[in-house]
Amino acid sequence: MAKETFPEFSSHYPLLLTTFMKRPVKVYPNEIGVVYRNHVTGEYFRFTWMEWYKRTCRLANALKKLNINPGEPGKPGDRVATMALNTHRHLEIYYAAPCSGAMLHTINVRLSPEHIIFTINHAGDKILFFDDILLRLVEGIYDHIKDTVKMFVYMSDKPGLPDTKIENLYEYEELLKAESDEYEWPHLSEDNYATLCYTTGTTGLPKGAMFTHRAIYLLCIHVQAYTVCSNDPARVFLGENTVPMIITPLFHIHGWGAPFSYVLMGVKIVLPGTFTVQGFCELVQTERVSTVGVVPTILALLLEYPDLDKYDLSSLVSVAVGGGALPLGLKNKIEKKLPGFTASSGYGMTETAPTTIAAFVKKYMSDWPKEKLDEVRVKTGLPLPGLDIEVVDENGKPIPHDDNTLGEIVIRGPWVMEKYYKNPQKTAEVWRNGWFHTGDMAKIDEEDFIVIADRMSDLIRSGAEMVPTVLLENLAAMADFVLEATVVGVPDEVWGEKAMAIIKLIPGSDKNEQDLIDFLTAEGVDKGKITKWMLPKLVAIVDEIPKTSVGKFNKIAIRKDLDKFLANAKDMKSN
Amino acid sequence: MAKETFPEFSSHYPLLLTTFMKRPVKVYPNEIGVVYRNHVTGEYFRFTWMEWYKRTCRLANALKKLNINPGEPGKPGDRVATMALNTHRHLEIYYAAPCSGAMLHTINVRLSPEHIIFTINHAGDKILFFDDILLRLVEGIYDHIKDTVKMFVYMSDKPGLPDTKIENLYEYEELLKAESDEYEWPHLSEDNYATLCYTTGTTGLPKGAMFTHRAIYLLCIHVQAYTVCSNDPARVFLGENTVPMIITPLFHIHGWGAPFSYVLMGVKIVLPGTFTVQGFCELVQTERVSTVGVVPTILALLLEYPDLDKYDLSSLVSVAVGGGALPLGLKNKIEKKLPGFTASSGYGMTETAPTTIAAFVKKYMSDWPKEKLDEVRVKTGLPLPGLDIEVVDENGKPIPHDDNTLGEIVIRGPWVMEKYYKNPQKTAEVWRNGWFHTGDMAKIDEEDFIVIADRMSDLIRSGAEMVPTVLLENLAAMADFVLEATVVGVPDEVWGEKAMAIIKLIPGSDKNEQDLIDFLTAEGVDKGKITKWMLPKLVAIVDEIPKTSVGKFNKIAIRKDLDKFLANAKDMKSN
Repeated sequence: MAKETFPEFSSHYPLLLTTFMKRPVKVYPNEIGVVYRNHVTGEYFRFTWMEWYKRTCRLANALKKLNINPGEPGKPGDRVATMALNTHRHLEIYYAAPCSGAMLHTINVRLSPEHIIFTINHAGDKILFFDDILLRLVEGIYDHIKDTVKMFVYMSDKPGLPDTKIENLYEYEELLKAESDEYEWPHLSEDNYATLCYTTGTTGLPKGAMFTHRAIYLLCIHVQAYTVCSNDPARVFLGENTVPMIITPLFHIHGWGAPFSYVLMGVKIVLPGTFTVQGFCELVQTERVSTVGVVPTILALLLEYPDLDKYDLSSLVSVAVGGGALPLGLKNKIEKKLPGFTASSGYGMTETAPTTIAAFVKKYMSDWPKEKLDEVRVKTGLPLPGLDIEVVDENGKPIPHDDNTLGEIVIRGPWVMEKYYKNPQKTAEVWRNGWFHTGDMAKIDEEDFIVIADRMSDLIRSGAEMVPTVLLENLAAMADFVLEATVVGVPDEVWGEKAMAIIKLIPGSDKNEQDLIDFLTAEGVDKGKITKWMLPKLVAIVDEIPKTSVGKFNKIAIRKDLDKFLANAKDMKSN
Repeated sequence: MAKETFPEFSSHYPLLLTTFMKRPVKVYPNEIGVVYRNHVTGEYFRFTWMEWYKRTCRLANALKKLNINPGEPGKPGDRVATMALNTHRHLEIYYAAPCSGAMLHTINVRLSPEHIIFTINHAGDKILFFDDILLRLVEGIYDHIKDTVKMFVYMSDKPGLPDTKIENLYEYEELLKAESDEYEWPHLSEDNYATLCYTTGTTGLPKGAMFTHRAIYLLCIHVQAYTVCSNDPARVFLGENTVPMIITPLFHIHGWGAPFSYVLMGVKIVLPGTFTVQGFCELVQTERVSTVGVVPTILALLLEYPDLDKYDLSSLVSVAVGGGALPLGLKNKIEKKLPGFTASSGYGMTETAPTTIAAFVKKYMSDWPKEKLDEVRVKTGLPLPGLDIEVVDENGKPIPHDDNTLGEIVIRGPWVMEKYYKNPQKTAEVWRNGWFHTGDMAKIDEEDFIVIADRMSDLIRSGAEMVPTVLLENLAAMADFVLEATVVGVPDEVWGEKAMAIIKLIPGSDKNEQDLIDFLTAEGVDKGKITKWMLPKLVAIVDEIPKTSVGKFNKIAIRKDLDKFLANAKDMKSN
């Protein structure tokens, strides 16, 4: 801890999340800052910034009393774990833990129980906060984590503790009641660790990415600076009158930074517990929500919802899409349904905190027609200012800016994770030659936009060529009869691999496999976007496409069940 | 210099001005980035970002050849001094020097020759770049600086060197021609010093405030984040289509950050050499300038300009005012003349890089009437996010938020200077108890706005009370017959000090001293903004009010010539 009197405070004034936490309390102490709606009971809870801050102080005092100790640069503080949805309590822990010097570990509750157990023991979590709705899940893993986790805290809108085998169990609201609503926040170093976020572990065990206060602070402030540069004519500038609903689970990579950025801005934050289509529509209507960040799947769910027209969703003007490419077809369909709503794409990953590349309308494009601009808005985008991003070939050399060459995205910058927790081997695999290697493939087009093509492991290798599956998926989603589309490689005797398209039709459609090929031929091959040999050799129409816990198409699950999909697929050899 | 391969690059990826310099070259290499107009010849020079960047690389190579050496954290590199106006060359030095590791010392050419000589020798400048127009000034001080300055560089739009006694003289354009347009920018530490800015020295010798790359980087990025929060309904959001003209001299505290922020944003930057009313109007018209930062004096000069109506100034939508309080009367007058033009106030000083407090319309004010919002826009404002600002009494305790109590503004944060160059004594005077002491007095009103009242040294002490002169000045400037107004204390046998108002009338006005008192009584006393005893006891109507080199009212000069002003003043004792 730094001393109180020091000229050095100036040039090394630390970049701390504490600064974010305090701003709305100074500027808007008596305005409503946090609105939480319980998605099961439909009950609303509202807090002014001062009320929220005082609860956060009480929690910090409780953590101290429970002997949760701060860390120092290079040495994490005690790990404070959460298994929780998007509630005001989770947002309180988001600040109380890091700002008191502890390390926040937000557990992805959609991982397999085996992986959840692994992350808790690997992280060495000392205390675990969990929502009432997740009681059975915690009880189910209890025997495997009880030697690691010393204390459990039960969070519920209803008073009282449940009848359970979990020992050392505290009640969140009772802990708060017992404490003072003032807390002297320590002068931490900006290099103190703030958070620990495990990857989804699609290709092995989850890895824990560590982030310092400085890294998260700089992520958020640069995202805001990017917003100032951006000049999309469709953009509605709301400033502090923005009303964000945080749909991205707070257990996913800092909820994409939203819980930090929006507190700094002092805007009203809407928390829906977990996403339900009905809860989403109701909250947009009652709170006049303007802004959300979603995975593409959520847009597909909205399109399917029969009661969508019954709600007033006119306040919704801006949607950022991440966690997967935004197909132009899906963007068009949702914007047709909800005029005034503009969706644009972005890219990031757990290890990058996450935002790194985002949609951008360049200044000379301002007067382009909407159709052409929409193509720009789904192009993934430009690097955020402050980041150094290259797309490189196998020798680490930047690829040319054209429409054909693919390379791997490599990144360095102030909010890329330094290392995985207790995993020097995996750290060495991703950090090479001064660059973090993402494992994601992209091209750079002639206007210098980075366009994600694929995970390296998802690329289809057909003969000497590579089929960029995301390109095919985006093209297929353009068809007005397609709700969702994914493309995977399947073994082929001649070419090594060939492409299989798996699609879900929009409700009531009577189109068939050949209609998809005809569409891809007309919109893709004939327009020069793909070559003929890239066309899928197999098409399967299904009721449901498997997804990962974060809503991405789960290609690993598809490959596991490949025989089932192959049995369902029609051979389009005639093409 | 850091090594090329290191995982540490992530969490400690340095915050360097180099990152700012490179962004527009990546995003807009072939767009016009810099426009310079020679204010003497009227000639225009335009550069794409790539052209400007290549010239900057050539300059960095030249600096290397001239043996200008980089520094390291805590140890400044060789000092590169400039005596230059707002030209593309000055902007090139702004990046070539700091980004190659040297320290940029921008000399305020409006200081007295004695003070200029002092700063050059105190800084130990190794090389001095100067504009052709300043040749006589440099020759005049040459004998006093030639032992310190080893090399001189002459910058001119015309080729050739002048006939002069200055030895070791190089020609800027010739230096560039001899070098490669590629340069490998070093991986500096963010704690490398970037700039050295001397104070104006109104109360003694100038003091040199030192800024690191990190400090300037964080200033700029936070100013942009503040813009995102702000929600002034009068604001026109232009993003990258903003066209700023940098009027603030580049030798004043980093030109208020503009040369850095606008390069990062990649907007077209307009440089007018030095400010002339005609040049200003012409550039606004030809370049469609949208945004300027000015001292209040500039607005007064525009109001006086008889040809103002001959120009199309409709592109000008936003004016930030600093370097002095913005009187509401002046704001009203200029906005009446130029509709669409919105002026708002800010506050900063050399030691704070400079921006710290800026006008802000809070979210609940969005639908207030224009008149009420205008009062908010001139209120000085709210602290920028990231800064810790308090207004404290003599014991260092925060003052209450009301309309009466005055205190001193104290600040700490990532872009407050750490220390003065080679001046530990002055550093210790301003850095006390962990806070930088500004010496400026302010109140905090009930809406938490910080409202600057005065320099501590300018406060008038009348009996046991203090007369806030800025308040009186702003009130006087409200009168439609007043062009400029200042208030100083003069000795008084009974009260110690009493207030004298010195005013300049708008051209053609026939109002007199009593009209001012009547106005202050009606608008100030009767409306509860001041109390009757605060009314000036003396009023002087003058042709010119002395100003400092930065355009502020020069109260020290007034006090020096006090007898002259007193002779001119009318005693308003009857009040």
